[in-house]
Amino acid sequence: MAGNTLGTIFTVTTFGESHGPAIGCVIDGCPPGLELSEADIQPELDRRKPGTSRHVTQRKEPDTVEILSGVYEGRTTGTPIALMIRNQDQRSHDYGNIVETFRPGHADYAYWHKYGIRDPRGGGRSSARLTAPVVGAAAIAKKWLNQQYGTVFKGCMSQLGELPIPFVGWEHVPDNPFFAANPGIVPELEAYMDALRKAGDSCGARIDVVAQNVPVGLGEPIYDKLDAEIAYAMMGINAVKGVEIGAGFRSVAQKGTEHGDELTPQGFASNNAGGVLGGISTGQDITVSIAIKPTSSIRTPRHSIDKAGNPVMVETFGRHDPCVGIRATPIAEAMLALVLMDHALRHRAQCGDVVAGTPPIPAGAGG
Amino acid sequence: MAGNTLGTIFTVTTFGESHGPAIGCVIDGCPPGLELSEADIQPELDRRKPGTSRHVTQRKEPDTVEILSGVYEGRTTGTPIALMIRNQDQRSHDYGNIVETFRPGHADYAYWHKYGIRDPRGGGRSSARLTAPVVGAAAIAKKWLNQQYGTVFKGCMSQLGELPIPFVGWEHVPDNPFFAANPGIVPELEAYMDALRKAGDSCGARIDVVAQNVPVGLGEPIYDKLDAEIAYAMMGINAVKGVEIGAGFRSVAQKGTEHGDELTPQGFASNNAGGVLGGISTGQDITVSIAIKPTSSIRTPRHSIDKAGNPVMVETFGRHDPCVGIRATPIAEAMLALVLMDHALRHRAQCGDVVAGTPPIPAGAGG
Amino acid sequence: MAGNTLGTIFTVTTFGESHGPAIGCVIDGCPPGLELSEADIQPELDRRKPGTSRHVTQRKEPDTVEILSGVYEGRTTGTPIALMIRNQDQRSHDYGNIVETFRPGHADYAYWHKYGIRDPRGGGRSSARLTAPVVGAAAIAKKWLNQQYGTVFKGCMSQLGELPIPFVGWEHVPDNPFFAANPGIVPELEAYMDALRKAGDSCGARIDVVAQNVPVGLGEPIYDKLDAEIAYAMMGINAVKGVEIGAGFRSVAQKGTEHGDELTPQGFASNNAGGVLGGISTGQDITVSIAIKPTSSIRTPRHSIDKAGNPVMVETFGRHDPCVGIRATPIAEAMLALVLMDHALRHRAQCGDVVAGTPPIPAGAGG
Amino acid sequence: MAGNTLGTIFTVTTFGESHGPAIGCVIDGCPPGLELSEADIQPELDRRKPGTSRHVTQRKEPDTVEILSGVYEGRTTGTPIALMIRNQDQRSHDYGNIVETFRPGHADYAYWHKYGIRDPRGGGRSSARLTAPVVGAAAIAKKWLNQQYGTVFKGCMSQLGELPIPFVGWEHVPDNPFFAANPGIVPELEAYMDALRKAGDSCGARIDVVAQNVPVGLGEPIYDKLDAEIAYAMMGINAVKGVEIGAGFRSVAQKGTEHGDELTPQGFASNNAGGVLGGISTGQDITVSIAIKPTSSIRTPRHSIDKAGNPVMVETFGRHDPCVGIRATPIAEAMLALVLMDHALRHRAQCGDVVAGTPPIPAGAGG
Repeated sequence: MAGNTLGTIFTVTTFGESHGPAIGCVIDGCPPGLELSEADIQPELDRRKPGTSRHVTQRKEPDTVEILSGVYEGRTTGTPIALMIRNQDQRSHDYGNIVETFRPGHADYAYWHKYGIRDPRGGGRSSARLTAPVVGAAAIAKKWLNQQYGTVFKGCMSQLGELPIPFVGWEHVPDNPFFAANPGIVPELEAYMDALRKAGDSCGARIDVVAQNVPVGLGEPIYDKLDAEIAYAMMGINAVKGVEIGAGFRSVAQKGTEHGDELTPQGFASNNAGGVLGGISTGQDITVSIAIKPTSSIRTPRHSIDKAGNPVMVETFGRHDPCVGIRATPIAEAMLALVLMDHALRHRAQCGDVVAGTPPIPAGAGG
Repeated sequence: MAGNTLGTIFTVTTFGESHGPAIGCVIDGCPPGLELSEADIQPELDRRKPGTSRHVTQRKEPDTVEILSGVYEGRTTGTPIALMIRNQDQRSHDYGNIVETFRPGHADYAYWHKYGIRDPRGGGRSSARLTAPVVGAAAIAKKWLNQQYGTVFKGCMSQLGELPIPFVGWEHVPDNPFFAANPGIVPELEAYMDALRKAGDSCGARIDVVAQNVPVGLGEPIYDKLDAEIAYAMMGINAVKGVEIGAGFRSVAQKGTEHGDELTPQGFASNNAGGVLGGISTGQDITVSIAIKPTSSIRTPRHSIDKAGNPVMVETFGRHDPCVGIRATPIAEAMLALVLMDHALRHRAQCGDVVAGTPPIPAGAGG
Repeated sequence: MAGNTLGTIFTVTTFGESHGPAIGCVIDGCPPGLELSEADIQPELDRRKPGTSRHVTQRKEPDTVEILSGVYEGRTTGTPIALMIRNQDQRSHDYGNIVETFRPGHADYAYWHKYGIRDPRGGGRSSARLTAPVVGAAAIAKKWLNQQYGTVFKGCMSQLGELPIPFVGWEHVPDNPFFAANPGIVPELEAYMDALRKAGDSCGARIDVVAQNVPVGLGEPIYDKLDAEIAYAMMGINAVKGVEIGAGFRSVAQKGTEHGDELTPQGFASNNAGGVLGGISTGQDITVSIAIKPTSSIRTPRHSIDKAGNPVMVETFGRHDPCVGIRATPIAEAMLALVLMDHALRHRAQCGDVVAGTPPIPAGAGG
Repeated sequence: MAGNTLGTIFTVTTFGESHGPAIGCVIDGCPPGLELSEADIQPELDRRKPGTSRHVTQRKEPDTVEILSGVYEGRTTGTPIALMIRNQDQRSHDYGNIVETFRPGHADYAYWHKYGIRDPRGGGRSSARLTAPVVGAAAIAKKWLNQQYGTVFKGCMSQLGELPIPFVGWEHVPDNPFFAANPGIVPELEAYMDALRKAGDSCGARIDVVAQNVPVGLGEPIYDKLDAEIAYAMMGINAVKGVEIGAGFRSVAQKGTEHGDELTPQGFASNNAGGVLGGISTGQDITVSIAIKPTSSIRTPRHSIDKAGNPVMVETFGRHDPCVGIRATPIAEAMLALVLMDHALRHRAQCGDVVAGTPPIPAGAGG
């Protein structure tokens, strides 16, 4: 109820603050019998961890995960899987100057009014560092979904600040720090970020994620629609301000004759739906796009107030990502994987097992 | 779990299909002592009901609501409030021709694969008619929030198909069937719709909704962020494909110096955040924008398949809204109201009562 | 959250008060494709309805159920099933004298302090009449469990006030108004009740219920243990003050060598466990016993206070069951069925389908 | 959904197995601003820890708790509080001989069939060791309830095997290893346990717990009745087979004139209700009694089967409590505290803050 649990059957309850002793999560409802060790989880954490290029925060965190429970002789037992990551590089003195003031665009002001107390060290609970346990949990979901249905997840940055990044191919994504599916544009992105850092400013980004080989029939028809749950999961990522499924906002100006994806014996002919109709997966690719706002912690002085309501100027030092979107791709994939995992199990509850390859017709070219 | 309940403390569980005997909902968790009768609910239902202009479906439904429980001598008792609306004008023979085929862009295909059975009469459970009970429930939430905090909800259409609708003033919204906040553009909208109807086609729309006088501190910080819950609620409305909070997708190209709303002793200086920071309300206006896809049921013949996978052409007759966005404004307001209501009660649970006017500083010009 | 929903996947949300317009429930999560009509539900309602003998309340309620949704062409569609029963014989003037006072042993006092308002007509929401929708919902669960696993439910009264009722055979239960599994003792029970009624007093009862052919593996291991959920469901029935599973309170004085049910290749040799070990069903019979307190609404004058705290004498007229336990057997069966149904679906979610006849060894003589 | 979370608003999600790396829990929904450190939690863990007398398991576990999150500068922040206890004395070789067989009365058989895999080391997840995190979480609930309402919790053993333990006074409970409220009977209890241990057998126990100074109005009226939730919580403790509230099973043979607690201007005249009417607290003491079965792990050889269904004799060596009831008193208190804590917050959500001393009349002599 206090909002630290994600999912309904495959649940992830996280804990921890940016500069506390540890962060982690408890995953409940994982099917028993899945082969699992830290080696399945660590690579996903490494994709998201800080300090891997000059374009992200320079905080050094190995983000080494420990499985505390739920696995016996290398297989899940069906009982809760607890993951823990000890915080290492905390330097909380960096944040001392912001204890009494509110950073524009930051959660400080809202936390203070909600709880009457807040942990200011590194943003406390509101830090994007808290996406690490989610990425860890999603590694388990990804493995199970892949084994069960062949589902795979892909993601890339499609815009950095004012620079659109044309899609070239998924294979390029691991080769640059931006998760750009376009090798040629990387120098331009690097120059953009270098200029921004020098200016003491920050920028936003757009991230696209896709799930392929999704079984037909996932999602509930009225309120826990698959797309509604995806929107919830994505908007829950730090700094996200917008979510689109399929054609998204482009569908406003489309005609019905243009938007509605026709079906053929070979599958759907297009995918404006983004893989979801009536809140339920169709077997086509699930396509999602999100808008990430510019980082609020910047060196440029800004107008604000202190706790007493007096005007102050705020500059934020410490180590921050000048574009939080740069590390957001694996997080967005993780959220999508967790939503699909939960709905795969929900589907089993009411309707019995999804049979891989269920659809009597192929998902088709658009899929 | 099967997804027909909205909310966690103030819950709305709906039932019914487009052409079944009745639709309705059970509202649980309403605070006791609120004055309530059908007269509080009917006006909201009337704003959304079909058949009120030539631009919407011609199905005639008075949508008369009956309160079956939870009210004693004109006041809520704290026990479940059941609302029921009998379906009147069903004409299910109109739909006979679609039982064996799947309409492009429609939920038919997904329902069929999920459940192995579907109610084809008027779209069954997937009909937008099922938003009526939600609008009814939200009337109660709106009343309580207004009494408690002075919260008010406003909404308008900001784009119809390719036509943007510049905002002039909220006072114009009730005066036209499009919920346009702009009286001068109405003739153009009417002509656009008339042409579309003649062409047997449909179009999308963009709807904006706002909540004003929202207490500071609503929303949970990690997964049940206020903006995440709003995204979930909005994406759960039939035909919605995109959701934005505050600056939304515009924030991608913004700089941190531009996006982060500065604070002054007189309040926030701007509202790119859309009233939510770190997942928690700031006391500023909550601003939301949604993309609605074009109606999938159109008269123009389209390629599809039947249950056996054979190619067929599908034309949809019957009575349909050529733009489901036209009646979506009160629905979007309703969803926003239900989210805020639930979070107001969640806030009380953990942190005690929100005091109206809590913020030590005014929400300010941007608010 | 306000406590009017039972279950997690197969959920039953009830509404209504004793003397309001209607009572009913919304059942969500029912598997699709189950044949269902009112004829499946009405017989269970008839077993519990009032006015069927001189030993129960003389209120005349046909308790005719109407299915409002979720069924298409005689089969469930997987969408919510709403049941409604109109209240007929309300006579709320009978209760006028208790509006300002609190009946000893009754919910009046607690409701008043919780909500600051209460519906005094027939006990409002606290009336045992509200078990009717649950019995209706359970008819659906019983049918599904029976088709899926062959599960059957049986129940009987095993003690009426001071009179123990030795078990003779299940076949006798339908032949007397007490649900006694013993035809010989019925005249004694009738005489006991007649004397009690004359004395203006009431008595308690003990009810035993059993589920047979339960699949192995239902129940969650730590907090949603099957026995914990059964205890919750049973203690939630009006007037229940105690719950036992298997040997129950007799296990206090047992030795480990006596209590622990030995296993043989032919099955368990005894059933002290009552069919549950470690919170999970073993395939043996689930055996439950509950204690029901004497009805609090009695004609004998009793000391109490009014709302202002002044001493008053309270006599309760109107129509009441002199032993609410007499109609409790079908209710206890219903609660057990709903718990098993929910856990059958929960099991599918995490572990996949239970295969009927799963256990490699028979449940055995004690089962 | 997989049953490892207790509560709805104040939630406790536990993890860990008897012989895994660590056990612990995540507490979500704790009100912010509560002073909290390990020193508040450790004493409750020490009351329950093993190895403190010759009558309990000789496993040596210091059960040292570490707070991993949710506390800043000595006060709760409203974010999740994670507690972790590293397992120390594991000796899992003691359990090697039970991997292939099922111990009578033990969870082995059920786990094996549910999950197809089980952690046999010390009972894995089914071990009573898993009550430690709950006791830790309840220390927080007890502190908050005490500060808010003055609520206190007391418990004692009222029967050990065949020996009833007459109540003398709460002050004696901490002075003996049995939690007996009677100093004179302790030598008899010790002799009883010594004989049992020699015989390689085990016995059951009855535990009574009480909550005093409980606010009026906690509990939901239909399914989440306060007594139903207590029954659920208690039956969820390892080895519990029966639960009573107030008069419990004695109420079966009571008359209405005897059972219904009369009210006077000075308060209730008796407490057969056990502090709950209509599912809602009355402000009287909440009184609960539970039956604990004899430990199933005993040295006496017993008939069982192996995984292949072949007959075997099973003796259980290793370190076990010969009466799990001996350490159950603090666990039962903990469960009661967690239920009340959750319902105190639920009450705030729907009805606003409970005001301490709300009832206009004192709870009275029986209270």
